[in-house]
Amino acid sequence: MYDIIIIGCGPAGMTAAIYSLRAGKKTLIIEKETIGGQISSSPLVENYPGFKAISGSDLSNELYDQVINLGGEIELEEVLEIKDGKVKKVITDANTYEAKSIIIATGSKFRRLGLEKEEELVGNGIHFCVACDGAFYKNKTVAVIGGGNSAVINAITLSDICKKVFVIQNLADLTSEKTLSDKLLEKDNVEIYYNSVVKKVNGEKELDSIIIDNNGKEELIVVDGMFISIGQVPQNEFLKDTITLNDCRYIDANEECKTNLDGIFVAGDCRDKKVRQVTTATSDGTIASLQAIRYIEKNTR
Amino acid sequence: MYDIIIIGCGPAGMTAAIYSLRAGKKTLIIEKETIGGQISSSPLVENYPGFKAISGSDLSNELYDQVINLGGEIELEEVLEIKDGKVKKVITDANTYEAKSIIIATGSKFRRLGLEKEEELVGNGIHFCVACDGAFYKNKTVAVIGGGNSAVINAITLSDICKKVFVIQNLADLTSEKTLSDKLLEKDNVEIYYNSVVKKVNGEKELDSIIIDNNGKEELIVVDGMFISIGQVPQNEFLKDTITLNDCRYIDANEECKTNLDGIFVAGDCRDKKVRQVTTATSDGTIASLQAIRYIEKNTR
Repeated sequence: MYDIIIIGCGPAGMTAAIYSLRAGKKTLIIEKETIGGQISSSPLVENYPGFKAISGSDLSNELYDQVINLGGEIELEEVLEIKDGKVKKVITDANTYEAKSIIIATGSKFRRLGLEKEEELVGNGIHFCVACDGAFYKNKTVAVIGGGNSAVINAITLSDICKKVFVIQNLADLTSEKTLSDKLLEKDNVEIYYNSVVKKVNGEKELDSIIIDNNGKEELIVVDGMFISIGQVPQNEFLKDTITLNDCRYIDANEECKTNLDGIFVAGDCRDKKVRQVTTATSDGTIASLQAIRYIEKNTR
Repeated sequence: MYDIIIIGCGPAGMTAAIYSLRAGKKTLIIEKETIGGQISSSPLVENYPGFKAISGSDLSNELYDQVINLGGEIELEEVLEIKDGKVKKVITDANTYEAKSIIIATGSKFRRLGLEKEEELVGNGIHFCVACDGAFYKNKTVAVIGGGNSAVINAITLSDICKKVFVIQNLADLTSEKTLSDKLLEKDNVEIYYNSVVKKVNGEKELDSIIIDNNGKEELIVVDGMFISIGQVPQNEFLKDTITLNDCRYIDANEECKTNLDGIFVAGDCRDKKVRQVTTATSDGTIASLQAIRYIEKNTR
């Protein structure tokens, strides 16, 4: 039996493992896809404290080495179900594991437009996170896709960094808070296309332009970068019968990282919260792990 | 006028600066003592994700370089007072600065015993944070000073790592929650001294023993390490007429890092919260900075 099983091997899960292992707890991480999670596909990370510039895959590798060096085990399997109880069970597509405590760190994925070549250009002109990648477009031209709060905040922030910002919104209005949309409308270097959707992304190794459907008319916009701001999808589907999720399927927990079930904790982007960055993920990983350690010490021998 | 002034140059403050600077905001950090804050005196950090092992001063230097590289300014002055308003003022012992937004990241300090040689041995046998430094005492003998919740949690965690744990409590009982003290009392390798205080710490470069007053009788205890667990003191005294502090002088704010004053945010150990680690500090720095950027974008031109 493991002391702690962590589901998800991104920054949140790996940080949880670092804390658990250093406290002498037998720890397993189970990951269904990619060591490092979402950050591993980022070509350049400049906002993780401690590294002026590092690729997401190198940062993931550093974390992975740190976990393995401390004696952590990692299995590449998909978790299908978890079962609560004094002894908790984690059922994967290959095995059933037992643990005293579980930490869910499954992350979330940015919603895509679903276009041809989109996935290839992620990190090479196509981005999701302005706090992460906006600074790479200083004095350049970008498009923001979306018109809700996140999209409008992203567009305002980018308008202070970039030469020109296009906003492509599929509705007749922005749906953000009025103070935010008012602020955006004041910006001289922002141009908003309403009732418009992106039909095609162009570029070989780097995005160079997009084609939009503007009220039924095709239009080519030359851009250096594009920020897709149409939400995220937490990877919590398999938990829906066990753990309390909110309407958007994020796990309902505050910064203490406790789920509705004793001994089951949550960390990182899959938690309901406002800011999803590597820093906030590692913070959650820390807190969830210390909670799990305390839970084990209080409740088991 | 600065966009954002950050008070305190530890991991929280420097992370806030990284995010502010990358969003194109003119940013000043003001520090009264040490670049890096509390972590800078830690000889070995093994629980910061991304570095298998790094000294606290090297980690501080990495953060400092990152801030300077992005164009950040740092002044070594002591802030005496802040004044709220549409334009906010930060008054130091040398200057008065103006800013659109302020982030308070002043940190906290672990309470000391006040003994001769204590400060010299911090990091060399004398520690405060078990999640940070406990793992260095695998199969060794340590003393925990204190008997409240933190001390008892620390002692339980250490008892799973160390050969022997002495607990030195100045009262006739432990004052922690009953479930925790019960758990501690079950441990075979834990010995508790009640009505006892540490009178002296011995050792040249490394702590090698302590002398306690045990109910009026002097006793020498040979230890490899000592964890002082008698609380922390937030560095918020100068804010008491401006910002809402709790009874222990921590700034009252949840994970959104908003203080009672619009446009003034808090990050790191000086905030009222449960877990104080570098990871939770950088998370706060991120969130406070994004909040400040959003505040500026909404409220000023």
